[in-house]
Amino acid sequence: MSKTKKIAKASLETMYRVFTIPEAPNSTLGRIDQKISQNLAGFLQDHIVAVEKDLSEMEKDFAESRIPEDPVFVSEQTQFLLDKLVSQSVHTASPSFIGHMTSALPYFMLPLSKIMIALNQNLVKTETSKAFTPLERQVIGMMHRLVYDRDDAYYHEWMHNSSVALGSMCSGGTVANITALWVARNLCFPADSVFKGVRREGMFKALKHYGYEGAAVLVSKRGHYSLSKSADLLGLGSDNIIAIPTGANNKIDLQALRATCEKLRDANVRVISLVGIAGTTETGNIDPLEDMAAIAKEFNTYFHVDAAWGGPTLFSNNYKHLLKGIELADSVTMDAHKQLYVPMGAGLVVFKTPSTSNAIEHHAQYIIRQGSRDLGSKTLEGSRPGMAMLIQSGLKIIGRTGYEILIDLGIEKAKTFAAMIDQADDFELVSEPELNILTYRYHPVWVRQAFEFADEERRQAINDCLSRITKGIQKTQRARGKAFVSRTRLNPAAYDGQACVVFRVVLANPLTTVEILQDILEEQRAIAAEDILSERMDELRNLCAIPTAKVAAS
Amino acid sequence: MSKTKKIAKASLETMYRVFTIPEAPNSTLGRIDQKISQNLAGFLQDHIVAVEKDLSEMEKDFAESRIPEDPVFVSEQTQFLLDKLVSQSVHTASPSFIGHMTSALPYFMLPLSKIMIALNQNLVKTETSKAFTPLERQVIGMMHRLVYDRDDAYYHEWMHNSSVALGSMCSGGTVANITALWVARNLCFPADSVFKGVRREGMFKALKHYGYEGAAVLVSKRGHYSLSKSADLLGLGSDNIIAIPTGANNKIDLQALRATCEKLRDANVRVISLVGIAGTTETGNIDPLEDMAAIAKEFNTYFHVDAAWGGPTLFSNNYKHLLKGIELADSVTMDAHKQLYVPMGAGLVVFKTPSTSNAIEHHAQYIIRQGSRDLGSKTLEGSRPGMAMLIQSGLKIIGRTGYEILIDLGIEKAKTFAAMIDQADDFELVSEPELNILTYRYHPVWVRQAFEFADEERRQAINDCLSRITKGIQKTQRARGKAFVSRTRLNPAAYDGQACVVFRVVLANPLTTVEILQDILEEQRAIAAEDILSERMDELRNLCAIPTAKVAAS
Repeated sequence: MSKTKKIAKASLETMYRVFTIPEAPNSTLGRIDQKISQNLAGFLQDHIVAVEKDLSEMEKDFAESRIPEDPVFVSEQTQFLLDKLVSQSVHTASPSFIGHMTSALPYFMLPLSKIMIALNQNLVKTETSKAFTPLERQVIGMMHRLVYDRDDAYYHEWMHNSSVALGSMCSGGTVANITALWVARNLCFPADSVFKGVRREGMFKALKHYGYEGAAVLVSKRGHYSLSKSADLLGLGSDNIIAIPTGANNKIDLQALRATCEKLRDANVRVISLVGIAGTTETGNIDPLEDMAAIAKEFNTYFHVDAAWGGPTLFSNNYKHLLKGIELADSVTMDAHKQLYVPMGAGLVVFKTPSTSNAIEHHAQYIIRQGSRDLGSKTLEGSRPGMAMLIQSGLKIIGRTGYEILIDLGIEKAKTFAAMIDQADDFELVSEPELNILTYRYHPVWVRQAFEFADEERRQAINDCLSRITKGIQKTQRARGKAFVSRTRLNPAAYDGQACVVFRVVLANPLTTVEILQDILEEQRAIAAEDILSERMDELRNLCAIPTAKVAAS
Repeated sequence: MSKTKKIAKASLETMYRVFTIPEAPNSTLGRIDQKISQNLAGFLQDHIVAVEKDLSEMEKDFAESRIPEDPVFVSEQTQFLLDKLVSQSVHTASPSFIGHMTSALPYFMLPLSKIMIALNQNLVKTETSKAFTPLERQVIGMMHRLVYDRDDAYYHEWMHNSSVALGSMCSGGTVANITALWVARNLCFPADSVFKGVRREGMFKALKHYGYEGAAVLVSKRGHYSLSKSADLLGLGSDNIIAIPTGANNKIDLQALRATCEKLRDANVRVISLVGIAGTTETGNIDPLEDMAAIAKEFNTYFHVDAAWGGPTLFSNNYKHLLKGIELADSVTMDAHKQLYVPMGAGLVVFKTPSTSNAIEHHAQYIIRQGSRDLGSKTLEGSRPGMAMLIQSGLKIIGRTGYEILIDLGIEKAKTFAAMIDQADDFELVSEPELNILTYRYHPVWVRQAFEFADEERRQAINDCLSRITKGIQKTQRARGKAFVSRTRLNPAAYDGQACVVFRVVLANPLTTVEILQDILEEQRAIAAEDILSERMDELRNLCAIPTAKVAAS
């Protein structure tokens, strides 16, 4: 900073000003405000620098730990944000950013968000939210109906009934899953004549009172990490999230599930909940929900479905059959900031039975008094913003048929991309897309041939080498900033459960074209041939015992 | 809706449009967008209807439970939101809305929020947040320094160190408190040579292994309800949040606290944490933090401070001494959406020791891998928006001295209002403001005289009647919509712990003037004299055994 820099001084007057005087339209911030309204894509394109900067480099711009004594001018801070933050943020809206579950937003979400923030309501209680409370109850009702499809009379009776809540809004899928398992745990160890219930007496006394040796939650090994976090948080212990094996298609192995239920019953361990997945985070597969519901019933346990990703598939008349049985779940998690295209920070869980959420009810004297309509009595969070307004707007402005088009588009695009990979000589599809997610890896034909004749140890070595190359391609592509796919590690049945690093692709952005997908493969192919990976390629050739010359000719 | 209404139809083309074509500047939504930028106060004033509508009435506007089949036009939905939602929302920014902790926003927060939402980053991992991750670490570092005041070298070493986090960002104070107690619980029952730790094995085995009969958290009876929710959630049981009595000033009774610690030790119950409050939700009082820290040390237990409200008092050189001892806490909760004037949805907890947050670490294969800088490994939530950008902007644009002015303004205004109430014949100050919160109630001089000579039973009856009148005044004033104070129930020592309903006032909006406070008292006085309360007034007169005529003349 130059020595002649103007210094702003805080005074009572300047403080009044920040609360009363808008940014001038021709100020730095005023101009950005307009530009985003007029041309969001252009703003992002102009300001986000594609090429990756090292995080350690960026940290230098955020090294000061002292809160500035004197105020900084709004224009100065805005320029700082543009230069150092916006420029180095991730272009999540880019159609070639197909690596994670955050994608583009519909244009109307921006001005609507501004209204939401301007109103600054707090949904914990009606006194700071008024109409936002019935609005939120409606949104929960609509999502409940999407899953459970009850009739008008049902929603007329329950949707605005203050004694219950058909669901619980929250900041995202993790809190939704925690909420569901919290409910399941509390329902499992209720109050009776001598015991006040786990919610009041805790896990230690609950297990003692009910005479169990332990408590567990069962989910396939593809379960989201939020479940193990939930088990830690809820005092169950993360080791008591029991990971059930999956079949070749990444769906839970039902036989193994039933066997585990039996084993735990024999060991006097209470199964608090089975968790089905409707769209696994890594591969997008859906568990056999109907069969899982039957097993849950057989073993008298709660059944939760984590449909944070795949829930909106229910909008599609063509694909909703994939989620058959979801309506049998006691609760279902869905994320509005994923496939409902709402800005970050909107998740929810819906409950089959209206009174279910009473298992986690909490009250206070100054708000959410017993009998009030305040939604805060049945949520994990306290103060919450009015995100329901954006969800309702999405449901209305896009409509059921609009979401159906978006869902179908993604699934069909994933099938197209899978076919492209299948036809490629250098890439191998690792998980077929059931929804709009697929995984693949670098695995050229000449390696596949060598692999077939290799012994187990050699296969492991080849797989490890392929993993390093796949990882190298992914990191290089990300750093160059033109496109982004993510990566994860799977243990495919086709490779006897050996660990393989794979590219992971999520096709939720409607603006991603087949040409973009072709370009992404092309760029990966080009990176594989670059010097940067030559050492690993040499290693791979040695493992496959093929002379370099032969490979070059193939 | 009229039968000739245009129906929008969803098509691939219309779906592309919502992701690519901005709202026209002269559309309904485009005009609102500009109006909010130019004149937020005017927008809120013009669109929010002051007079309260019954919730049951509002529910009719949100009765449809079916997701519309066909899309609704953006303009139609915008008009719906203006007519049915915005109009019936709460004017939280109004300077006469002094009942809750949600207040006005600085103007610059609006366009900055728009940038944040346009970028739609996900802070769970650097791959979807890049520069937002160091930014968030900086914000946590700044808030840590505000509390713990370590030197530059300390922050240089730890702020961006991926192996630790100096704090955890979250959606609000409730999640911050849960996070702190989660950490405290996990630190209390760590792994050893035969036990894998409570996080992996759960509460039942933890207590068995360590040989305790139970586990408890101690906080004054003024503790926030999120603590009892935390205890339920964490498997401790909400009955094990032990409420310690307070003295006349709503501060924890240290003798009772020590006695309880001793009693629990003798009963072989492990105290997981003491919780001090820096600004109780209902009365704004601050516990004797330094003494509590000493007791925590004596009994070898964790010490958490809930400074969700009062934390920013540390900005004020004039008042920060009130929080003396906060720097001894193992963790401190603060809410940015309260006295940092950030939009709803921004809380955080800071930890004295950098490695503390490792007690709640969770990893996954596809993100937040071991050793990564991803912040999601040490937060309760998974996906999170980039609210840190708004906190940083507040800290820089308002600055330490700016926040000091705002804090001082609120505390001094509260003292002024307290003096006004003290001088009034018909109102009684129930809790003196230590920060910017106070409580009072309707209690006219002529009742006070009668009260003095009444026996305990009669006193209870009088207090109950005063409570009904205070409640009636509060609800009537709220319904009329000119002003809003909240209400709660306290058990003041001055009334031998008898329950009293009180008005609760929070003075955080810098635009609230002394004239507005006078008007609020005047309106309450006027309501007390109205027919609507005459029955209760008659009852009060009877209880005080004073003939109506005499009162009228007094």
